[in-house]
Amino acid sequence: MESERKIVCYIAASLDGYIATEDDSLEWLFKTEGEGDAGYTEFMKTIDTVVMGRRTYDWVMEAENGKFPYQETASYVYTSSSAGDNPYVTFTNRDIPSFVKEIKEKPGKNIWVIGGSNLLRSFVKENLIDEWIISIAPVLIGKGIPLFQQFDFEIPLKLKTVKSYGQFAQLHYERL
Amino acid sequence: MESERKIVCYIAASLDGYIATEDDSLEWLFKTEGEGDAGYTEFMKTIDTVVMGRRTYDWVMEAENGKFPYQETASYVYTSSSAGDNPYVTFTNRDIPSFVKEIKEKPGKNIWVIGGSNLLRSFVKENLIDEWIISIAPVLIGKGIPLFQQFDFEIPLKLKTVKSYGQFAQLHYERL
Repeated sequence: MESERKIVCYIAASLDGYIATEDDSLEWLFKTEGEGDAGYTEFMKTIDTVVMGRRTYDWVMEAENGKFPYQETASYVYTSSSAGDNPYVTFTNRDIPSFVKEIKEKPGKNIWVIGGSNLLRSFVKENLIDEWIISIAPVLIGKGIPLFQQFDFEIPLKLKTVKSYGQFAQLHYERL
Repeated sequence: MESERKIVCYIAASLDGYIATEDDSLEWLFKTEGEGDAGYTEFMKTIDTVVMGRRTYDWVMEAENGKFPYQETASYVYTSSSAGDNPYVTFTNRDIPSFVKEIKEKPGKNIWVIGGSNLLRSFVKENLIDEWIISIAPVLIGKGIPLFQQFDFEIPLKLKTVKSYGQFAQLHYERL
């Protein structure tokens, strides 16, 4: 295959490694002074599929007042409970490695794993994240929902680029 | 005071926020391909004092075969157990805020808080770190000794610079 589709985690975190407070607040993130859209528009051109966990989906739907924001992409929501009702979304509980294998066999752009922490844990556990684009906000929030949960092995990465967008430090890694 | 001495934490961590594995190994760090000395020589010109915890001191002494490497600087080792025997070191168990207040009242260069995790926790708890210079190694190690322990408040920082030294991403912050 000329250039395989990649699984990319594009995410923001506090300097101490949290993606949200314990009560799902992103206030600390929204008050970070960025610069432009921190590369978001460019990033969105590289993907055509999003994958997220159920809690993230519920958070997004509430934040967007019920309007699903990823209507232009194929969208998968991992859920172990009941499937939701959303024409733009495929609710699934499939085995993640076989899901990734299948989606990579189809032509297309990259796949954005949006989060949250538990879905990322499942992807990391199987070493399925091809690229990380992490925008670090300049704040220690003390505790919350971790970007990286604990696991029992080591994953070496390759640093591609380091950028700043205003007060965000954006680190881009690919799997070795 | 024209320019107050600063308390600086200059440290390396894995991308998932650990400063060592659970058994104190830095192998993951040493195999990171850097570039030059990653600014170490320049940094050392800005400090004249180091502070570290007892476990870090013991680690350093073992790594250096018993020769204390910071003989050119005033050196403080925080210990709650017995003081050690080292002519280059002041062993102390003083209240940290009053220690910092006193040292800042004396003229001098910056003070490097080397670590480890528990000493940093004490400094962070009192919001005593003026600057952070964190060199992030391109690896997820899964678990270990955390750079940032949990706490119950928020510390906003200001991003000063972002650099790469080979495979290290170095983020420099100051307290707001």
